[in-house]
Amino acid sequence: MSNDFQIPYFKLDAIDQSILDLLHENSRISYTDIGKQVGISRVAVQMRINTLMEQGIIERFTTVINPTKIGMMVSAFFNVDVEPKYLEQVAEKLANDPAVSSLYHMTGPSKLHMHGIFADNQEMEGFLTDKLYATEGVVSVDTQLLIKRYKSRMGMKL
Amino acid sequence: MSNDFQIPYFKLDAIDQSILDLLHENSRISYTDIGKQVGISRVAVQMRINTLMEQGIIERFTTVINPTKIGMMVSAFFNVDVEPKYLEQVAEKLANDPAVSSLYHMTGPSKLHMHGIFADNQEMEGFLTDKLYATEGVVSVDTQLLIKRYKSRMGMKL
Amino acid sequence: MSNDFQIPYFKLDAIDQSILDLLHENSRISYTDIGKQVGISRVAVQMRINTLMEQGIIERFTTVINPTKIGMMVSAFFNVDVEPKYLEQVAEKLANDPAVSSLYHMTGPSKLHMHGIFADNQEMEGFLTDKLYATEGVVSVDTQLLIKRYKSRMGMKL
Amino acid sequence: MSNDFQIPYFKLDAIDQSILDLLHENSRISYTDIGKQVGISRVAVQMRINTLMEQGIIERFTTVINPTKIGMMVSAFFNVDVEPKYLEQVAEKLANDPAVSSLYHMTGPSKLHMHGIFADNQEMEGFLTDKLYATEGVVSVDTQLLIKRYKSRMGMKL
Amino acid sequence: MSNDFQIPYFKLDAIDQSILDLLHENSRISYTDIGKQVGISRVAVQMRINTLMEQGIIERFTTVINPTKIGMMVSAFFNVDVEPKYLEQVAEKLANDPAVSSLYHMTGPSKLHMHGIFADNQEMEGFLTDKLYATEGVVSVDTQLLIKRYKSRMGMKL
Amino acid sequence: MSNDFQIPYFKLDAIDQSILDLLHENSRISYTDIGKQVGISRVAVQMRINTLMEQGIIERFTTVINPTKIGMMVSAFFNVDVEPKYLEQVAEKLANDPAVSSLYHMTGPSKLHMHGIFADNQEMEGFLTDKLYATEGVVSVDTQLLIKRYKSRMGMKL
Amino acid sequence: MSNDFQIPYFKLDAIDQSILDLLHENSRISYTDIGKQVGISRVAVQMRINTLMEQGIIERFTTVINPTKIGMMVSAFFNVDVEPKYLEQVAEKLANDPAVSSLYHMTGPSKLHMHGIFADNQEMEGFLTDKLYATEGVVSVDTQLLIKRYKSRMGMKL
Amino acid sequence: MSNDFQIPYFKLDAIDQSILDLLHENSRISYTDIGKQVGISRVAVQMRINTLMEQGIIERFTTVINPTKIGMMVSAFFNVDVEPKYLEQVAEKLANDPAVSSLYHMTGPSKLHMHGIFADNQEMEGFLTDKLYATEGVVSVDTQLLIKRYKSRMGMKL
Repeated sequence: MSNDFQIPYFKLDAIDQSILDLLHENSRISYTDIGKQVGISRVAVQMRINTLMEQGIIERFTTVINPTKIGMMVSAFFNVDVEPKYLEQVAEKLANDPAVSSLYHMTGPSKLHMHGIFADNQEMEGFLTDKLYATEGVVSVDTQLLIKRYKSRMGMKL
Repeated sequence: MSNDFQIPYFKLDAIDQSILDLLHENSRISYTDIGKQVGISRVAVQMRINTLMEQGIIERFTTVINPTKIGMMVSAFFNVDVEPKYLEQVAEKLANDPAVSSLYHMTGPSKLHMHGIFADNQEMEGFLTDKLYATEGVVSVDTQLLIKRYKSRMGMKL
Repeated sequence: MSNDFQIPYFKLDAIDQSILDLLHENSRISYTDIGKQVGISRVAVQMRINTLMEQGIIERFTTVINPTKIGMMVSAFFNVDVEPKYLEQVAEKLANDPAVSSLYHMTGPSKLHMHGIFADNQEMEGFLTDKLYATEGVVSVDTQLLIKRYKSRMGMKL
Repeated sequence: MSNDFQIPYFKLDAIDQSILDLLHENSRISYTDIGKQVGISRVAVQMRINTLMEQGIIERFTTVINPTKIGMMVSAFFNVDVEPKYLEQVAEKLANDPAVSSLYHMTGPSKLHMHGIFADNQEMEGFLTDKLYATEGVVSVDTQLLIKRYKSRMGMKL
Repeated sequence: MSNDFQIPYFKLDAIDQSILDLLHENSRISYTDIGKQVGISRVAVQMRINTLMEQGIIERFTTVINPTKIGMMVSAFFNVDVEPKYLEQVAEKLANDPAVSSLYHMTGPSKLHMHGIFADNQEMEGFLTDKLYATEGVVSVDTQLLIKRYKSRMGMKL
Repeated sequence: MSNDFQIPYFKLDAIDQSILDLLHENSRISYTDIGKQVGISRVAVQMRINTLMEQGIIERFTTVINPTKIGMMVSAFFNVDVEPKYLEQVAEKLANDPAVSSLYHMTGPSKLHMHGIFADNQEMEGFLTDKLYATEGVVSVDTQLLIKRYKSRMGMKL
Repeated sequence: MSNDFQIPYFKLDAIDQSILDLLHENSRISYTDIGKQVGISRVAVQMRINTLMEQGIIERFTTVINPTKIGMMVSAFFNVDVEPKYLEQVAEKLANDPAVSSLYHMTGPSKLHMHGIFADNQEMEGFLTDKLYATEGVVSVDTQLLIKRYKSRMGMKL
Repeated sequence: MSNDFQIPYFKLDAIDQSILDLLHENSRISYTDIGKQVGISRVAVQMRINTLMEQGIIERFTTVINPTKIGMMVSAFFNVDVEPKYLEQVAEKLANDPAVSSLYHMTGPSKLHMHGIFADNQEMEGFLTDKLYATEGVVSVDTQLLIKRYKSRMGMKL
């Protein structure tokens, strides 16, 4: 007879949820301060955070840096058309390039969707001409530059 | 006579750069551990980090959460075509929506580029039908779902 | 602490799977013949089929009719662009039209994807002009006609 | 002198039409029940159905299965761009793939239009990367996932 | 029981076909010359041509004029996007415009496909600005100019 | 010093224009009838028509045949994308194909624009698969079928 | 009878051509230096240049300024989709805007093609949001930024 | 510690700005006339202009020629799709072609954007067929012809 079956994931309780909210707001907050705000002990906080890390729910504690403040003036999206049989090979090469900050395979046309940050147009043009266009299997590239950022919620991995 | 003029931004020295690298890798690292690795005192580390925060180079310390581990299974990109005169109004409304994680105005067609994360297709369909499609000025929406993530460097704000 | 959570669906055992395969191949097969082939009693077959229907796994027993043999010569796909706020209203109207055989909301551009079968070009042209183009909220229609069918597995609802 | 000429197809009388409607609604209906409802004998029903099958009007009796109830959560459309000279070869290979439920050559751009059903994104991603993208002659693939099904009239082969 | 049914059209015999070929090649050919070439009498030729005209097979005898030789230098195709509910109204208005030589509704996007011939760019620009763009319901126009004519078989109405 | 220069073409007087109008309306009209209507002698008519033919203004006298009346049910437009270096070679091959009625190189994307008339979908499908798709240099084909003809002024070569 | 007719323009002799070449290379060259190089008197040079200006062949003597050297860092192309009936009105408004350097109506989709130069992204974003998007009749805007200039021959008005 | 850093360019004072405006309006204006209008000596004008030329702010003094007045009737834009790895090679070849007046690499799809001026359609067709289409690496070309020029500010290099 047919039975129930399931895709497993973790359902957070209210305290886990509060801890994640606090860490998302400020990842340098101390266990003690978290404990005070959620009403459990410092040790219980540490245990729960360790569990959240072991479960892969927390991937990393990181720092949001504003690229324009350090002279990285050009934020770009690239839709990269690839000859289908080269998709994995091209994706692997691009993922290893330090200029590439994100790389996705999306529905829609069989393109790689890529994000990059550059000091200026000239640096981006060098990346395009010397690296991207020279990659075996790349058929065409659609480049879009950031005009304005309305919102960018960091820390939640798309 | 014509003179030099400049767009100001900050040029980091090697120690600042190392501090940012360490904080980007793990934002919960202690001042003491940073100091040991870059060869300056704990107090000097704290002063430099404070300066980096005041200059707006460091925007926030945050935590990267894996959405699929907490049951947010659908990551989506939306290209939102807006009647041009409504662009700012639509952008403001969408930026305030908790389902929207990022929102950009890019070169290319006058579209808003938006990211969102949803529990499942049904939740996304509700967002589309009840919120996005119902927004005054929205002309059409192109929805793309994440198939595979090759790389996602968190912490560097695109 | 975080717990497991699940999207429920039914996992078929080997006998259920065989019964579905036989019914999919020929829905007029008798319980007795099914029983012989899967090695259970006629009554057990009937019980399992009833359960599969109650669970919604079997939706319907139906008959595949070749439209060209009864003079329905034109099979068409329509991508219907709709003003977003009218999407549900247009979808409801079209779903009630007997000329429409399938109607979907897909990712990609915010279009309705629709299938229809017509006696000839003139009947289709009447449907386009009198019904589809006259529907409030329809912005444009992309019509594609079937040239050749390589495969069409009936019975599995897309 | 010029004469009349014709494309032959079958014109159904009212009784044939009623029998097809009943079988389309429920293909497991007995000859006796059909006979009662259309007002002819059980034997006459059987003869007419045999004729409809011999004429190819009835192609098959089948069963509609809801894929999401058995854990096939992802319904997808693929528009497959093929190097023109490979079209037949690619179509033949894809038509033999069990993951492909329908495959058509439509007017519009010279693409194959294909339907498939998958357990989840990962299974679909494997199909794309390992099979579709690796097929000689495939130039690009546009993938669209089902968000909502408004109508799906099974049994009438498009 | 189901019967044969038919779309009626005329099947030409070999003599009709030869007459049409001769008239298509040179519509000013005399009945006598046709008769000699196809081996029937002058009167029989006239009777057959009259029948072909009554059946609507021959629509008209006409003359092919080379527009560039009389100073009509610009041959243009226009794909006219129309708000769907205005399609018939726009088509009727454009069909009555002497600048429009052909006007079709094709599959593909719901556009009117239109041909026109103009003395020069300025005359075409006046047609676009004063007439086409000013027509209620016209959403956009894609204009293409003839660069080179490889073949144009006149007399067979597409 | 700079001088006037000119692209030569022929400017018709009122009588030539009337003769062309009459021949365009009915190319089998006699010289005598033309003479009566434009007020010159039968011989003068013949001389003027001969001149118009020598100048290439009149290209041919032809006959408009309605393809649907002789069982040519499918009128199609094809936009044929060609690898640029093969354009002339492909155009020459297609222009010699009897199924091709018109063939143009237009502004816009570097495609050949082609018209064809076929008995039915199957004949067109054979043309696509066996001829067009098999032609060296053809990259993709966009096929559009005629749904409705609003106007088709024959005799003026586009 | 039909006669020759002509679009008048000026055919330059070799001396006019040489004068134009020299002025195009350096518009501040003296009449004396031109005269020496083309072998006519200073007065004859002046007379020919005056004639070229009266004929409208020479439109203006101007100076090529490199915008990036004076802090105009962003060169942009805009394809502006306009509701057809507003085209002339929008074109007139944009042509009067000092930020717009060129504005054309081209074949292809009924868009205005526009060039502009801006100090930075923020200035361009202000132009888009405050002026272009706010213009009655503007339906959408496709913005493209200059990455690299391979060639820009000034002085020949496109 | 982090320091200020800068992209250098020249900021013009009011007198430089006025000189550039006068030269842009009429590049043959004498130093004396400029001096009178901006209120400095003839020598100071000459010195400032020399400096502006050395700084690269003034690139050239040139002459605007109206191409239609000398029989160059066809102004065209070409969007040239290039196989990415050939981009630089194709750009270099095209930049050396005298028929090409401007050539840019823009954001958006990886196309070269090119301007050209031709005597007539036939000359342009020759350029397309013999040169552009025959260039190794050119994948497709989208040709657009100028219909109307609303504004063309010469002298400011885009």
